[in-house]
Amino acid sequence: MLQELKQIVTKANQELQHRNLVIYTWGNVSGIDREQGLVVIKPSGVAYDELTPDKMVVLDLDGNVVEGSLRPSSDTPTHLELYRRFPDIGGIVHTHSPWATIWAQAKRPIPCLGTTHADYFYGEVPCTRPLTKEEVEEEYELNTGRVIVELFQNKDYKAVPAVLVAEHAPFTWGKDPDEAVHNSVVLEQVAMMAYHTTVLAGSSQPISQHVADKHYLRKHGPGAYYGQN
Amino acid sequence: MLQELKQIVTKANQELQHRNLVIYTWGNVSGIDREQGLVVIKPSGVAYDELTPDKMVVLDLDGNVVEGSLRPSSDTPTHLELYRRFPDIGGIVHTHSPWATIWAQAKRPIPCLGTTHADYFYGEVPCTRPLTKEEVEEEYELNTGRVIVELFQNKDYKAVPAVLVAEHAPFTWGKDPDEAVHNSVVLEQVAMMAYHTTVLAGSSQPISQHVADKHYLRKHGPGAYYGQN
Amino acid sequence: MLQELKQIVTKANQELQHRNLVIYTWGNVSGIDREQGLVVIKPSGVAYDELTPDKMVVLDLDGNVVEGSLRPSSDTPTHLELYRRFPDIGGIVHTHSPWATIWAQAKRPIPCLGTTHADYFYGEVPCTRPLTKEEVEEEYELNTGRVIVELFQNKDYKAVPAVLVAEHAPFTWGKDPDEAVHNSVVLEQVAMMAYHTTVLAGSSQPISQHVADKHYLRKHGPGAYYGQN
Amino acid sequence: MLQELKQIVTKANQELQHRNLVIYTWGNVSGIDREQGLVVIKPSGVAYDELTPDKMVVLDLDGNVVEGSLRPSSDTPTHLELYRRFPDIGGIVHTHSPWATIWAQAKRPIPCLGTTHADYFYGEVPCTRPLTKEEVEEEYELNTGRVIVELFQNKDYKAVPAVLVAEHAPFTWGKDPDEAVHNSVVLEQVAMMAYHTTVLAGSSQPISQHVADKHYLRKHGPGAYYGQN
Repeated sequence: MLQELKQIVTKANQELQHRNLVIYTWGNVSGIDREQGLVVIKPSGVAYDELTPDKMVVLDLDGNVVEGSLRPSSDTPTHLELYRRFPDIGGIVHTHSPWATIWAQAKRPIPCLGTTHADYFYGEVPCTRPLTKEEVEEEYELNTGRVIVELFQNKDYKAVPAVLVAEHAPFTWGKDPDEAVHNSVVLEQVAMMAYHTTVLAGSSQPISQHVADKHYLRKHGPGAYYGQN
Repeated sequence: MLQELKQIVTKANQELQHRNLVIYTWGNVSGIDREQGLVVIKPSGVAYDELTPDKMVVLDLDGNVVEGSLRPSSDTPTHLELYRRFPDIGGIVHTHSPWATIWAQAKRPIPCLGTTHADYFYGEVPCTRPLTKEEVEEEYELNTGRVIVELFQNKDYKAVPAVLVAEHAPFTWGKDPDEAVHNSVVLEQVAMMAYHTTVLAGSSQPISQHVADKHYLRKHGPGAYYGQN
Repeated sequence: MLQELKQIVTKANQELQHRNLVIYTWGNVSGIDREQGLVVIKPSGVAYDELTPDKMVVLDLDGNVVEGSLRPSSDTPTHLELYRRFPDIGGIVHTHSPWATIWAQAKRPIPCLGTTHADYFYGEVPCTRPLTKEEVEEEYELNTGRVIVELFQNKDYKAVPAVLVAEHAPFTWGKDPDEAVHNSVVLEQVAMMAYHTTVLAGSSQPISQHVADKHYLRKHGPGAYYGQN
Repeated sequence: MLQELKQIVTKANQELQHRNLVIYTWGNVSGIDREQGLVVIKPSGVAYDELTPDKMVVLDLDGNVVEGSLRPSSDTPTHLELYRRFPDIGGIVHTHSPWATIWAQAKRPIPCLGTTHADYFYGEVPCTRPLTKEEVEEEYELNTGRVIVELFQNKDYKAVPAVLVAEHAPFTWGKDPDEAVHNSVVLEQVAMMAYHTTVLAGSSQPISQHVADKHYLRKHGPGAYYGQN
């Protein structure tokens, strides 16, 4: 079942390694078939080089394994919560990519300090609050998804397809697994530049709103004019 | 038409990727045939690995597409403005290479802190003022070219073949597309070293003028003695 | 003798180079056969590309060479002291990997600033006191092992399989040579992120204990649920 | 003439590129035949990939070209001054490797902050004074050699085979071209770690003298016990 999606998710997981976002098994990508309500995700602790489509795990949105003999990623409940609450996303990525993780460890949002950021993320990449003791001890991975959703209550998750989980690391998403990986790569680059800009400038003054508007809107939405039709 | 220039521009665009100045489609190179007044530029949003000479777009200096079925780089109006106002340049590069972009995001010129810088750039690499709301909302890319030209009113664009656009990223140029790419590679290295020198020294004291003179002039101008004849 | 262990130790040494933890001959891995009480270690000053199992040196726990024509690593007395005092470890690694070495040179423990750290090290990675003049002048390498052991008197060496030797560099260990190398790779990544988090946050506040507990215990011990069974 | 030395110098120059110490033509290696009093050096501005032994330039110690049709490196007078004044060296390297250059641009010596440094350099790597206007305008490259020699008047150039030229970049040397390159690679690593240690520790306190003594002397001199006999 879901052969095509399994192939896409397999390749997207391996792309994390090719793009130097992960070492060992430090990241996972999932994809969803919205019609069937089924999620395909990386098995836990399996090396990227050993991944094949038939090792992928298929689950329904309640977390029941529908197919696959391996245990799914331990972060699966976070992915499922995001799929349930962000109805327009088709792929999710979690990594511990160093520069984005540095901001998450500092518990600081990544401010929009340049047009590279503005091309992809409309405003700062926010950082969740730390989870409480209770949230960590019971249903930790599910609660990780919940604090992300809480943070986006008044934000447009499609205009800012990335988040930092405080003390932990980033998640990104997109219309499909490939776009979610692309956003992870961009986030890492943006995080690296924001770190050094902040040190060099001695502060983190965001760019003006009209530049942020211009760059985001020239790549996204009805008036976009970047790329080919 | 312009087969040779198209090949040069294609290879120069791919060199951006080989030199790690770009990911995805984050940069573009153009070249000009001054006799015919025609510019060859990368198509917008096309991956470097997929570029071929026949995908290049040819425009006149007024921005009319003369040949090519793809849309030109969205930064084309910036390139054209520079070609119109800097009559001796033959190639232009725009990237979001990280270290130069960090200085642009900090809205600070890169001071000349060593002979590596002085070998290529005669004085600081300047940073434009931020564009106004009006300049961003109407003819943004053209106005980007205009603030660069404004900044060079009293500077020699041939002695400092690079600029930082505030909140954005660098542009470089040269006598041809290859030299423009070379200057982008050097700028990135110089920006990386200037960042760390500034942090380590706690300030950004430029080198003495006689060292700057010596290094620039031993590589450029009539008395140059670096390299082979 | 010990053919299998020699092969494991040879490959583990070469892995240091593949993972960019060492240049030239700046690191060494050893492994122990607990039943026979024999240690296999890299010969001193031999390039990784030239290592073969038959060049490995075999010693007993008192430091007597049992097999091998080459001189063992100059750090051998440190390895032996750790094997004598940490009875459950099966492999040891010493490198001068840059980020971990930076913390050792600063004589600061690496605080637990995120879940990446907590997944592997239960609490800070401690830093020894500097050795005294006497400890350096007589039996330096043995005394290096002794200050490590001293530091772990009230710590669980299995829960924190890494240490920084002040003014020097890190050692890591594990149940076998491969795990010890794995821990060195992780330590380097964690050290890099901790450095930048500390600069960005302006301090080094460790993560909350319940997050540290959760992450360490979901990968280690009886209730672990990361990876496959 | 000097076929073997030309091959060694050619390979040593190319090693600069393999070790990521240089881009384009930003570095040069020379070697000397002390019996004949002849120096072999890289031609100026020639790419490393295009170097062959027959393109090398041979000069006597007075700077007369004895063999070779290409112009020698513009830094040749610096090399020659060092060969004249440091009688026991057999090879010299000059690069603009980034981390060592950062210290040179900050006009600060690299303090001995750890055993990695102490293994190779016995004490800090010193930084010259800036050259005067007169020294720059007349015989600049020769005067660069002279300020290095001046700095080593009361230092042992064999125990500290590296120097930073203020506002410029490093030079290293050794008993032959290969050792000089090796010292450049080590210097770059040591400079990178010293930078970050200084930022992290908030100061640059050198390691204790007994550790510096121990590490330098266990690798160098009559009592050395590192490596094979």
